[in-house]
Amino acid sequence: MSFARLDELNRRIHALDHAISILGADEATHMAPGGGEDRAVSLATLSGMRHRMATDPQVADWIEAAAGEALGEEQALALGEFRRVHLNMTCLPAEFVERQTHARLRCAQLWRDMRARNDWTGFAPALEGVVALVREEAALRAEALGLAPYDALMDLYDPGARAADVAPLLDDLRDFLAGFVPQALDAQRRRLAARPAAALAGSYPVDRQRDLGLSMMAALGFDLTHGSLSVSHHPFCGGVPSDVRITTRYRTDEFLSALMGTLHETGHALYEQNLPRQWAHWPLGQARGMAIHESQSLFVEKQIGRNPAFWRWALPVVERHLGESLTLDDILPHVHHVGRGLIRVDADEVTYPLHIVLRFELERELVAGTLEVADLPEAWDAKMRAYLGLSTIDNPADGPMQDVHWPSAAFGYFPSYTLGAMIAAQLWAAIQRDHPDIDDDLAAGRLDRLNDWRRARIWSLGSRLSTPDLIRHATGGPLDAAHLKRHLERRYGG
Amino acid sequence: MSFARLDELNRRIHALDHAISILGADEATHMAPGGGEDRAVSLATLSGMRHRMATDPQVADWIEAAAGEALGEEQALALGEFRRVHLNMTCLPAEFVERQTHARLRCAQLWRDMRARNDWTGFAPALEGVVALVREEAALRAEALGLAPYDALMDLYDPGARAADVAPLLDDLRDFLAGFVPQALDAQRRRLAARPAAALAGSYPVDRQRDLGLSMMAALGFDLTHGSLSVSHHPFCGGVPSDVRITTRYRTDEFLSALMGTLHETGHALYEQNLPRQWAHWPLGQARGMAIHESQSLFVEKQIGRNPAFWRWALPVVERHLGESLTLDDILPHVHHVGRGLIRVDADEVTYPLHIVLRFELERELVAGTLEVADLPEAWDAKMRAYLGLSTIDNPADGPMQDVHWPSAAFGYFPSYTLGAMIAAQLWAAIQRDHPDIDDDLAAGRLDRLNDWRRARIWSLGSRLSTPDLIRHATGGPLDAAHLKRHLERRYGG
Repeated sequence: MSFARLDELNRRIHALDHAISILGADEATHMAPGGGEDRAVSLATLSGMRHRMATDPQVADWIEAAAGEALGEEQALALGEFRRVHLNMTCLPAEFVERQTHARLRCAQLWRDMRARNDWTGFAPALEGVVALVREEAALRAEALGLAPYDALMDLYDPGARAADVAPLLDDLRDFLAGFVPQALDAQRRRLAARPAAALAGSYPVDRQRDLGLSMMAALGFDLTHGSLSVSHHPFCGGVPSDVRITTRYRTDEFLSALMGTLHETGHALYEQNLPRQWAHWPLGQARGMAIHESQSLFVEKQIGRNPAFWRWALPVVERHLGESLTLDDILPHVHHVGRGLIRVDADEVTYPLHIVLRFELERELVAGTLEVADLPEAWDAKMRAYLGLSTIDNPADGPMQDVHWPSAAFGYFPSYTLGAMIAAQLWAAIQRDHPDIDDDLAAGRLDRLNDWRRARIWSLGSRLSTPDLIRHATGGPLDAAHLKRHLERRYGG
Repeated sequence: MSFARLDELNRRIHALDHAISILGADEATHMAPGGGEDRAVSLATLSGMRHRMATDPQVADWIEAAAGEALGEEQALALGEFRRVHLNMTCLPAEFVERQTHARLRCAQLWRDMRARNDWTGFAPALEGVVALVREEAALRAEALGLAPYDALMDLYDPGARAADVAPLLDDLRDFLAGFVPQALDAQRRRLAARPAAALAGSYPVDRQRDLGLSMMAALGFDLTHGSLSVSHHPFCGGVPSDVRITTRYRTDEFLSALMGTLHETGHALYEQNLPRQWAHWPLGQARGMAIHESQSLFVEKQIGRNPAFWRWALPVVERHLGESLTLDDILPHVHHVGRGLIRVDADEVTYPLHIVLRFELERELVAGTLEVADLPEAWDAKMRAYLGLSTIDNPADGPMQDVHWPSAAFGYFPSYTLGAMIAAQLWAAIQRDHPDIDDDLAAGRLDRLNDWRRARIWSLGSRLSTPDLIRHATGGPLDAAHLKRHLERRYGG
């Protein structure tokens, strides 16, 4: 009876989530430019309704009572997720949520403006306010969940992730990359000296690039009857599992950025499209978390999309759509380009983890109170010089003002990116163990074995397992940085 | 206090309506083909939430109590609409609504199938069930509103419309058209004998037609920062006032059908875009009803878009976009083509009202119980022969199975189409009285005087006045068929 009430409640929440997701994707793709104000009001109101519904005092009683009911295995699992989600939604007092929402929206708005002006002094007080509230949030969540403060934040994004497990992995990777980045750059220098990279600068009409993207998506297993490809300012994967909206953006002077963006979002989309439909309206039926989600996008973009075997199959497809005949030697220097840079979102797969390690280390200290916002520019610069040999001391816009995450109060999220890269490499290693000839599949454009493997071990499980348990279940062992290190060595070590 | 509660309730309803409208427009334009099932579940759930919210027992108390509060003029008007909408939503018992929703959805589904097979016998029992429930509905609404049964149905679509006022207007028009249709056909025959119509059969790429449509929309006053043009199977105007979604469909062998569809929907869109923003979340701020809405689309499509003066301005625009040089003598025979046909939606403005009169007369009898569904094919055929000289006795698919309205239980809606045509003609006559040189504006592509006039007298009023009062307010007199008759005589009389 109580479980049935929770089920019914979640159907209503699911209908609101459907609307909120589609309205969100629509806003970035098809909404008229002047429609934003009304859309914001509508979305805020729907989100408020959703929140009130999900945190109604009765819900806690239903969860308590349902635990005493005779439940099937799936229902018991569903109840566990109802409880987890409910606890995470209700452990902050309403007055705190209001204060934090206000501070966060204001800081994110200010960030847009101040970043454009490179004005750290104008921005820092707002970020200080957000950090103070994040410390408060972490304490409140820690108390409710029985976790350490930073863990309580990470748990929001990756249930089961703990700094005690994550930090050694990231330390290991950081220490490896200290030596490996120079090695990879050196190898690249030697390759380019032997054979300079071919220029890919042609003129690539948007509609042809779009057709190329669609045909790659279809080949990778994207179900075009349950999703679509549009254009937006920032690529994303949104919508709902039965109608996944992915986007990319095009330049006409090169095609790789749009294509790689499309492959990345296709990876997210495959996860969404293959989640267990029968649980769709329960949290149990949803994607496990940010690290697993990112592992799926990186799996398609990096493990498949930058694999030379894949390009054996892809080059004729590119030629068919864009009319340009390229060899592996032409394309791989572009697909495997490595370089030191200030900007995380522009980084290649070799240097990207260093951007994440930097943020992880700094945000743990910010949350713990051992680092203050006022000291952030120096701390950022010191790590940037140590890890990538670059300084941001005169350029905070490309330093601690670079990302929207902190102004939006999203602390504990950054590790997901590199955990995702590690998981993707570990999944690839596990697949290679099961199917030693998997490269032949890529070279033939056959994705069924790869997708069947991932469907059985990741996609179809929804939120059945915690993030660490899901990794163990899928790959046979705990998360281990060794796979990503080996992957980078093979591809970039020379 | 109670008014404030109603205001707050309507903000929440408005947020749901925003979502429902955008999701509806999205479904017909951008949704992935396989997304329909989830979308239907989500829309049904959101509509159910909306209904429960709007019919919560407290709402009646708030409306009662608000009447005793000190309200400003606008609040008092808003309260009147709250009461009207609430009465219309609550006067049917929940168990009746459920029975009717079920019967209606089933009948509309069956209709799609049976119409395609021209199977009246398979369809009739379902329609009988719907008609029985419509009679029940009309009685319940009549009781609650103190109106005659058919009037209670019409009042849903056009508040204030009464059969005693509408029937004489439609009778008058029917009797006029009995003589005028042959006259118009004869005049057309003579014109075409003197100068055969030029063939417009070229090849018109969709993107050029789309650009032509957009440039016409902009010229007519459509605000492209608050709306957009897409493609759908059936043209429509949807979305929300700050983001109006209109659609059309294209053929590449001619351009007039897509363009005329675009003009029609632009007429609806101008009304929506110019509704009073400050009342947007109240029923008071919404469009008055179906007849007025249709008057705005027909005003743009027929009074403007088929006016020879308009084509003086439009022909060079067409040439600029489509590269085809046409004269007025080339285009007008197509724009003013008249013909007898079985299908309402394909009818020209001369014969269209006869299709409506037929339906109005039959549905009044169906609701009154003086005609049974079993006798509908004969009754339809008799009127079709009398009014248009065509028989449908062997072709019920193009007879009483032609429209989705009756299977969907929408009785009392049909008159709106022809009331809209009458209102549009009466508005045009009133504008001509105020601005005798208004044709010069059209010939110059200047729409500001026309739009300012309509904004002041129709658009900005929202639902302040009943349909008859709004017509009187805008034109200085009650609705009168004379204006439409005169319009048809001038344009088609020869």
